[in-house]
Amino acid sequence: MAKAVYLAGPEVFLPNARAILDEKIALTRAAGLVPVAPGDLEFPPTDTQWQLGLAISAIDEKLMRSADAIIANLTPFRGLATDTGTAFELGFMCALGCPVFAYTNVAQTHGERVRDHYGDLCVTDDAGRLRGPDGLAIEDFGFADNLMLHGGVLNRDGAVVIGNAAPGTELTDLTAFREILAIAAARLA
Amino acid sequence: MAKAVYLAGPEVFLPNARAILDEKIALTRAAGLVPVAPGDLEFPPTDTQWQLGLAISAIDEKLMRSADAIIANLTPFRGLATDTGTAFELGFMCALGCPVFAYTNVAQTHGERVRDHYGDLCVTDDAGRLRGPDGLAIEDFGFADNLMLHGGVLNRDGAVVIGNAAPGTELTDLTAFREILAIAAARLA
Repeated sequence: MAKAVYLAGPEVFLPNARAILDEKIALTRAAGLVPVAPGDLEFPPTDTQWQLGLAISAIDEKLMRSADAIIANLTPFRGLATDTGTAFELGFMCALGCPVFAYTNVAQTHGERVRDHYGDLCVTDDAGRLRGPDGLAIEDFGFADNLMLHGGVLNRDGAVVIGNAAPGTELTDLTAFREILAIAAARLA
Repeated sequence: MAKAVYLAGPEVFLPNARAILDEKIALTRAAGLVPVAPGDLEFPPTDTQWQLGLAISAIDEKLMRSADAIIANLTPFRGLATDTGTAFELGFMCALGCPVFAYTNVAQTHGERVRDHYGDLCVTDDAGRLRGPDGLAIEDFGFADNLMLHGGVLNRDGAVVIGNAAPGTELTDLTAFREILAIAAARLA
């Protein structure tokens, strides 16, 4: 039976969220997998935004539990790092022991992005560790994001595809997604 | 037997990481719980930073699996949102079915922070949804961070303490941590 893959990523926040999600869903189906995406289930009626948020969280967890694997989009979202909802979901699926796959549309590593962000303001501390002007250490393991994310995927024999989308298309380009999808499809076959 | 609690948060990046972690560890022990913190185990010798990153990821996952519960520090880290490693770890412990607790030292909600960040550049789309000048929707459910994090805690009857640390002490103030620790200790007793 075809394996179901949860498609985690910040696409839900895009102006053209539905179109991009539909494209990812169609590509996943074409790869012989069953797409599971946030928003696939109806939300129950709620009185407040607070209740709606809780309902969406519960539904997305249910969708993850219905899936066999995850493909997480680690592309930096509104800042230097992965969308925190996606990071949560990747951790969730890692804990469940599911096959995990990830990609990013930004070729720079996390460490390179943070160094670029601070520029000349970076300092090296007495222990030789690079820090921002705020004193915060700059994690620099060559990973796409925090080591728990990239490491969590690699340590369970998943795969991470590093894309390099044109500026302005980082959240919409699907080149790296197609590539990780092909890897996931082959491994889950 | 005393329950073990994994202490997730961005403290590892602080210039005084060891001191702050030691203080959290001492407070946790004083609350009658067994503290489990990143860095509690020795890292094996590795040849490269890449291998070291993978080793730390594996050790932190092992530490999480050894714990009964988690207290996650959701305070915004180097930007508008929770540290992605912490988000991953919270998702991990939610999936394992562990009791989950969280706190933040910033009183503003995620939606308020993003609105403040964009200021006058926010726009309301045709569907009445608030967006940044980049077109990205501003999630605004009244939560401290992305709904998967705050919702994940509340939906499994955890607790989230919203602190309000003085500017400049957001990553070091332990007032909210003490409060959530007391709640966790009472519930895990």
